[in-house]
Amino acid sequence: MKTLLTCVASLLAAAPALAADAGKKEPPKSLTTAEVLAAAAPADWRALDPADTLYLDLPAGRVVIELSRVHATQHVAAIKTLARAGYWDGLAINRVQDNFVVQWGDPDNQKPPPKLAPMPPEFASAITKDLPFTPLPDKDGWAKQVGFTQGMAAARSTTDQWLVHCYGAVGVGRDNAPESGLGNELYVVIGQSPRQLDNNVAVVGKVWRGMDLLAALPRGTGGGLGLYEKVEQRVPIKALRVAADVPAAERTNLEVLREDRPTFARFVESRRNRRDDWYLKPAGHIDVCNIAVPVRDLAQ
Amino acid sequence: MKTLLTCVASLLAAAPALAADAGKKEPPKSLTTAEVLAAAAPADWRALDPADTLYLDLPAGRVVIELSRVHATQHVAAIKTLARAGYWDGLAINRVQDNFVVQWGDPDNQKPPPKLAPMPPEFASAITKDLPFTPLPDKDGWAKQVGFTQGMAAARSTTDQWLVHCYGAVGVGRDNAPESGLGNELYVVIGQSPRQLDNNVAVVGKVWRGMDLLAALPRGTGGGLGLYEKVEQRVPIKALRVAADVPAAERTNLEVLREDRPTFARFVESRRNRRDDWYLKPAGHIDVCNIAVPVRDLAQ
Repeated sequence: MKTLLTCVASLLAAAPALAADAGKKEPPKSLTTAEVLAAAAPADWRALDPADTLYLDLPAGRVVIELSRVHATQHVAAIKTLARAGYWDGLAINRVQDNFVVQWGDPDNQKPPPKLAPMPPEFASAITKDLPFTPLPDKDGWAKQVGFTQGMAAARSTTDQWLVHCYGAVGVGRDNAPESGLGNELYVVIGQSPRQLDNNVAVVGKVWRGMDLLAALPRGTGGGLGLYEKVEQRVPIKALRVAADVPAAERTNLEVLREDRPTFARFVESRRNRRDDWYLKPAGHIDVCNIAVPVRDLAQ
Repeated sequence: MKTLLTCVASLLAAAPALAADAGKKEPPKSLTTAEVLAAAAPADWRALDPADTLYLDLPAGRVVIELSRVHATQHVAAIKTLARAGYWDGLAINRVQDNFVVQWGDPDNQKPPPKLAPMPPEFASAITKDLPFTPLPDKDGWAKQVGFTQGMAAARSTTDQWLVHCYGAVGVGRDNAPESGLGNELYVVIGQSPRQLDNNVAVVGKVWRGMDLLAALPRGTGGGLGLYEKVEQRVPIKALRVAADVPAAERTNLEVLREDRPTFARFVESRRNRRDDWYLKPAGHIDVCNIAVPVRDLAQ
């Protein structure tokens, strides 16, 4: 069998630097992704905070979601309240639309969510000096600037910042009214980044593990929306809990590469210009949604 | 349940035109996708040519692939030769890497392909006046220009044109040597467009139907490449045939929207700026890989 399209790294340290940000204080030479990660220091990683982490436990396994600390904060608080009320436990994934989203909630409107205070739409946040953002030098067609915050892809206009719809982004379903997203219906992107949703929905977090469980679910056929048409197709949610509420021994402890350190810039460069033996023509560009931020089990 | 993220169209004909190509001879007003397609003429569609179409028949159903008539012509010819020799029949899908590719071939090297003449890599084609290309006005970060040819996403430099790796693109696996792709191992993109592969592989076609069958396959766990580690995980290929060789009664007759007519420009505009009621802020931009070219059953 051909090895093709491999992720196997090899040493090409002598290759010329092709960083889009050449000239800035950036890595002096091009490395493969494996080399960058092998050289990462413990401080280049951060552990997920259990208070900001959700476990979506399905029959096939666990999906680990990190919630944003700075975006859609009222929706994030509502989602944690719902999780702590056991709202989703026993409900189900009822929509899987190919190349778009997986979604769960209360398809039969049988379980009204706990009464929550009204919330603003929270599609975007005003930029302040305290709003974390690590820009990506590569240009983007959808926004003035793109980058990362808390490991999540984000974008900026001159005034606002918002989380963008990359693979694994978690958002709050809503009806046509902008403030109709209550947080009780959540979706995850499973296909080509639907960036047209940016600034139209409250994105609240990101899946760090378990995308294989969501993206491989059978596609639904209902309504042109991927809805499961039969109740028995639905994927039951065993539990959706805040990690901090789960006994320590049952937690999935992950850490992700921090975007605010030089190692992250080297990692991005290793994706912008692939130095593995397989690649013949490095791209010289990367899309924010093509950057899969590294995640690993927390070192014990 | 919330309707959210719907594709349902509504009439907003009075909305102002926001075409990226405003000023050119383009649609005078913004329409929803449903309105554009409802107004399409029969001549706006083209039927797939059975001579350029492959049927990948799996236990769960059929995947319909169209081969390029102008790109990677030698690889395309080799693939048709292999299909006509029954090469893949009884082989299997043996790799499903999340957010990347599904791949099939001969994982155990037990079935040497028929001897074929050596081929050039065919990663790209020199631009000539006869090479069809309908440009997209939106800018692209990976290439000087992007657009469509035969319904397939394509890109151009000043000298070359190539098919790009969008969701559903079909490519020829290869080893590290550029001319090692023989056509006997094929892959299909099932995630965020891996554009870093562009110009590094011979892309030969596109899946027009059946992505739901490929993209929902269980992910493999081997080698960091999504390889199925157990033989029983593999998805057997019942047959991979050229449609022209299949009895007419057993064919899947599809037609796709032609990119070389004004309706296509209107369709793209309806995706660039969504006019459905659900959308509050039209994006004003579209990525070439966010344009799912319409396909339908051939009118009888």
